[in-house]
Amino acid sequence: MEYPESIKDLIKTFSKLPGIGPKSAEKLAFFILNNSSEFAETFAKQLTTVKIKIKNCKICGNYSETDVCPICSNPNRDKSKICIVETPKEVLTIERLNIYNGLYHVLFGVISPLDGIGPEKLNLKSLFNRLSESEISEIIIATNPTPEGDTTGTYISKKIKNSNSEIKITRLAYGIPVGANLDYTDIVTLTKSFLNRNPLE
Amino acid sequence: MEYPESIKDLIKTFSKLPGIGPKSAEKLAFFILNNSSEFAETFAKQLTTVKIKIKNCKICGNYSETDVCPICSNPNRDKSKICIVETPKEVLTIERLNIYNGLYHVLFGVISPLDGIGPEKLNLKSLFNRLSESEISEIIIATNPTPEGDTTGTYISKKIKNSNSEIKITRLAYGIPVGANLDYTDIVTLTKSFLNRNPLE
Repeated sequence: MEYPESIKDLIKTFSKLPGIGPKSAEKLAFFILNNSSEFAETFAKQLTTVKIKIKNCKICGNYSETDVCPICSNPNRDKSKICIVETPKEVLTIERLNIYNGLYHVLFGVISPLDGIGPEKLNLKSLFNRLSESEISEIIIATNPTPEGDTTGTYISKKIKNSNSEIKITRLAYGIPVGANLDYTDIVTLTKSFLNRNPLE
Repeated sequence: MEYPESIKDLIKTFSKLPGIGPKSAEKLAFFILNNSSEFAETFAKQLTTVKIKIKNCKICGNYSETDVCPICSNPNRDKSKICIVETPKEVLTIERLNIYNGLYHVLFGVISPLDGIGPEKLNLKSLFNRLSESEISEIIIATNPTPEGDTTGTYISKKIKNSNSEIKITRLAYGIPVGANLDYTDIVTLTKSFLNRNPLE
């Protein structure tokens, strides 16, 4: 005896989602079954709508419902700065800090030879086009502090320096997290934090 | 700055699912965005299909694509036994043991006064109808070993005994789990296991 076909199909799809194992997939499918038809219909509609409505901003690549995203089309943003991030999520993370008024560029990944991801698979071509087409004074590399994120940052930095030595390239500072304990900070972080020490004013 | 409307809607719906917090909901929505349109469409279709196709078996209440579920309509099953479970999941759990050939009855919940769930909210009326309409020799109560499961079992048992004292009513045995350690078994379980000790053959 097994579940009816339509339940099995739904469980299978749920289990394809990241972080959802077979037990959770079963639980989610039963949640749908126990819930109203309206809920399932709304959910279904949102799934298809999101794929139809969301495109990549023609300038920065970020997810957007318009051809050019609200950040790139905002006349009040400082168009001379571009902050490079791995995914659209990080755009929002940085926006929430309320300290940056420049533009973004979303790579949609990082260079990772082990996973077969070379620079050509990232949203890099449009970045270099942007650099040649407009006046950029600073590139802020905000990839994640992982080996892949670092490699990607270095790759981009070298590429830009080769063609345009005027642009200032910066990277988010490594250091001890606020509220952390020196004893419990890993040595790589602590070393970077020590070497990059700042003058006290 | 926020996510576009259609992404926000999808994140909100994902976060309504059990066990999915706001961070996971975001991750799942981005998984849909990064995946093919076909995946989103299949997922959407399965969500609506399952709600259209799946109904409750007219006899036992279990989820089924047919009016009467495959178990109730199987002529080879022993129609004199009914195993009472809380949800459709447990039907499958018991079926997988390959030791029971009777029928089931799915309650879709347990009596839980704190949650405002009385016996009238469970699939009980049809159970009592089954008992009066057909020859039942044994009722196996397989609700979960929780206070609510026990209360529900006792409630059903009393109801049946009041109207028909011929039916044998049993409950799954409480005891030490196979492979467990007596030292680490809670005293309630150990007490029940001791009192229900079985003769060694």
